[in-house]
Amino acid sequence: MPSEAVTSEALLAELKSIVGERYVLTDPVDTGGFLTDHRARYHGSALAVVRPGSTAEVAQLARACAAAGAAIVPQGGNTGLCGGATPLEPRPTIVVRLDRMNRIRAISPAEETVTVEAGCILQAIQGEAAAHGLLFPLSLGAEGSCQIGGNISTNAGGIAVLRYGNMRQLVLGLEVVLADGTVLDGLRRLRKDNAGYDLKQLFIGAEGTLGIVTAAVLKLFPAIRTRSIALMQVASVEDALTLFARARAVFGERISSFEIIGSSYMDFVLHYVAGTVMPFAAKAPWYLLLEAGDSQPDAPLAAAMEGFLAAAFEAGLVSDATIAASLAQEEAIWKLRHGVTGEFKLAGKTMSHDTSVPVAEQPDFVRRVEAGILAAYPDANVMMVGHIGDGNIHVVVLFPHERFATTDEFEAASDAIDVIIDDVAMELGGSITAEHGVGRTYRKRLARTKNPDELALMRQIKTLLDPDNRMNPGKLFLTATET
Amino acid sequence: MPSEAVTSEALLAELKSIVGERYVLTDPVDTGGFLTDHRARYHGSALAVVRPGSTAEVAQLARACAAAGAAIVPQGGNTGLCGGATPLEPRPTIVVRLDRMNRIRAISPAEETVTVEAGCILQAIQGEAAAHGLLFPLSLGAEGSCQIGGNISTNAGGIAVLRYGNMRQLVLGLEVVLADGTVLDGLRRLRKDNAGYDLKQLFIGAEGTLGIVTAAVLKLFPAIRTRSIALMQVASVEDALTLFARARAVFGERISSFEIIGSSYMDFVLHYVAGTVMPFAAKAPWYLLLEAGDSQPDAPLAAAMEGFLAAAFEAGLVSDATIAASLAQEEAIWKLRHGVTGEFKLAGKTMSHDTSVPVAEQPDFVRRVEAGILAAYPDANVMMVGHIGDGNIHVVVLFPHERFATTDEFEAASDAIDVIIDDVAMELGGSITAEHGVGRTYRKRLARTKNPDELALMRQIKTLLDPDNRMNPGKLFLTATET
Repeated sequence: MPSEAVTSEALLAELKSIVGERYVLTDPVDTGGFLTDHRARYHGSALAVVRPGSTAEVAQLARACAAAGAAIVPQGGNTGLCGGATPLEPRPTIVVRLDRMNRIRAISPAEETVTVEAGCILQAIQGEAAAHGLLFPLSLGAEGSCQIGGNISTNAGGIAVLRYGNMRQLVLGLEVVLADGTVLDGLRRLRKDNAGYDLKQLFIGAEGTLGIVTAAVLKLFPAIRTRSIALMQVASVEDALTLFARARAVFGERISSFEIIGSSYMDFVLHYVAGTVMPFAAKAPWYLLLEAGDSQPDAPLAAAMEGFLAAAFEAGLVSDATIAASLAQEEAIWKLRHGVTGEFKLAGKTMSHDTSVPVAEQPDFVRRVEAGILAAYPDANVMMVGHIGDGNIHVVVLFPHERFATTDEFEAASDAIDVIIDDVAMELGGSITAEHGVGRTYRKRLARTKNPDELALMRQIKTLLDPDNRMNPGKLFLTATET
Repeated sequence: MPSEAVTSEALLAELKSIVGERYVLTDPVDTGGFLTDHRARYHGSALAVVRPGSTAEVAQLARACAAAGAAIVPQGGNTGLCGGATPLEPRPTIVVRLDRMNRIRAISPAEETVTVEAGCILQAIQGEAAAHGLLFPLSLGAEGSCQIGGNISTNAGGIAVLRYGNMRQLVLGLEVVLADGTVLDGLRRLRKDNAGYDLKQLFIGAEGTLGIVTAAVLKLFPAIRTRSIALMQVASVEDALTLFARARAVFGERISSFEIIGSSYMDFVLHYVAGTVMPFAAKAPWYLLLEAGDSQPDAPLAAAMEGFLAAAFEAGLVSDATIAASLAQEEAIWKLRHGVTGEFKLAGKTMSHDTSVPVAEQPDFVRRVEAGILAAYPDANVMMVGHIGDGNIHVVVLFPHERFATTDEFEAASDAIDVIIDDVAMELGGSITAEHGVGRTYRKRLARTKNPDELALMRQIKTLLDPDNRMNPGKLFLTATET
């Protein structure tokens, strides 16, 4: 189609004039890494990967794409787990990487705010806050490479949601470039602002389907100067929730994380993740990680933790426990919990989930999901790990490499297990995706499980803000031919 | 117009069949209190005030109003300060009072959630949480009569935003009836949910212009079991911010409130509010109220407060201070700060504002606003009081009763002072309404100060959700004839 080729040529030339020739990547050697998702499940194509250097450039390139009818896929650190940043629709598409927009524009200790560009690496923001005696609490496995624009666009969760909330709760102001190139400047450093609808909420968690996040004002918090971390062995999820209530009574607002690790997940980690060591003599059905933190350097958390554990032993809720006595021990405990996505591939064929249910429904959720999967697939290894304080348990189903003869067989089993888990989650008032988002991966499940009135309103909002469906098309929603 | 009269008759008959005859109020004796706003500045009219008993009834009456083309004005406790709940457009209108829907449907200490109907009085929710050893932190002057649906619809602020956030941060799930009667059921008890756009955010703070909030799931927190409250005399807003930073270093996450009272506001309170007593021998330019709280019953807050104040004296930041030594003294200190809206009328003609600016910009804001108003109106008494920890200082301008010969003169001065304050706020990156909302009162100011791109998107969202402009018309936006 020569006419389209000409159009594409013209668009590329215009993009080069906007951002500079060197920042319009078209050679597969340069673009390859940005056209495949983090888990290497999706492989897309694009006219170019463009790396703008400013909000003004993003606005200009958005206008150019609008005029040319080209789609835009915004991309941060490309660490998402649902294929949300990979261009997968068969149409002219530009991937917009925000990585050059990585300046921390301002930090105000007096206001406990930091103003950042979308391409800032999460860890750099954490570090900048720490250098000013403050805390930016968002923390997750990919923090060394994920970008804050992606964290905002996926409403990222992580290990400190219990205390500080999701990414959504950490955003004070937001700057967004809309599909038509309009810069929606909501970059306010305000703790309170009721002057009309809170438009930034539309773009947080929208996965780039409504606009491109270019900058944000984030909340900071007092740094944590005293910490106590314990790992416990417990018999059941019910006991874990009883311990959660007891920990609330002892530590109150000081609980930073309350995480659970199932026995088979612990076995997997100990086997596959280098440098992990079981700190207990025997095994247990479940392991709990409790972290308490206090902004005061002399807070008596260690004594409180000892008291908490002594009472828990006394009540028969804990069979064994260890308190980290050094930074190295703290890290060793967290290593047992932290991201092992890469290692899953070594172990076999896995299906990962990101379900949430109301906190009190988790014992039911765990029991029914495990029973349902094992009834259908008796050879499945059902591993569980997650943020029990948030009601967010990740179910990871593991099969031997050779279990499925074909990809179709694997996909069929994967779909069947999705339905088992989703049906339990829906009956318990849950969500099919707690923190990972929908992206490409969960679209069918969203269409199947989401309240039709909510899904209809979502589509209306999408159409309002992106009438030509050019912003990250083929994400969140099934496309016209699929529905 | 007999045809409209017939239509209205038919609508009233249908509404009676939906909610029951006794809950459709048309006699002015019954409706009068609901057609005038809290400050008695607006007097409206309606076909009826309807008091539905369930979400299903709200949905039915919304459908009936849609069919009849009638407008709907949702109303909670009618304690708003901007006329947002008064029917003021010249068209057939139904006021929907949610007061009969006042059940606390469920409370879960294990989840720290409570599920409430929109008509629950805020104080009742606080009480239910306290009865379970928990805290619902929203706290404001009208808490004894305001309803949670109104708090949600106005994204209420109050005295604990610094620690717990606005109302928006306290909502986990929301049930809303849309203009066409659709029940948008988002009443989920989830801490994390990234399954699509977070639709509830649209309705929080929308002041009833996009739908009727009928129920919500709210977050609860550990109860505060140790508290320390101090009142300080300080020389300047700069010193107040220095003390804020020092308080953060000493108390960290334990600061619950950090409030400021200007000298002339303090004089006003001491003169007009019965039972208030100045706890100091001399006067000062500014007074600071610091409340720290801890969930642990034996937290050493009193010692920390003494140390904090001793260091502040030492540094010359505080000229005098008092620490509450009893519940009675705590209440006496808070009484100096708390709502005195009713008493303003005794003192003269007042113009109240609800501005926010970035926390660090407050010294500039206070200086420039005071100078600007006094330059234009040398006889004005410029009083200031507010949430300095949030950047939200209420400016109250007081004139003698006899100062303005006509209402027009008063309105002209009021408009001129609005412009003085708003211009300073905009230059400092602020908001014309931090926590009160827009309602009827602030529409012109919103239209004048809001970023046009944001205002345009707000209007698009309004049109999407309420194409016939029947949901609380004449609020937030200027009407077609006014623009």
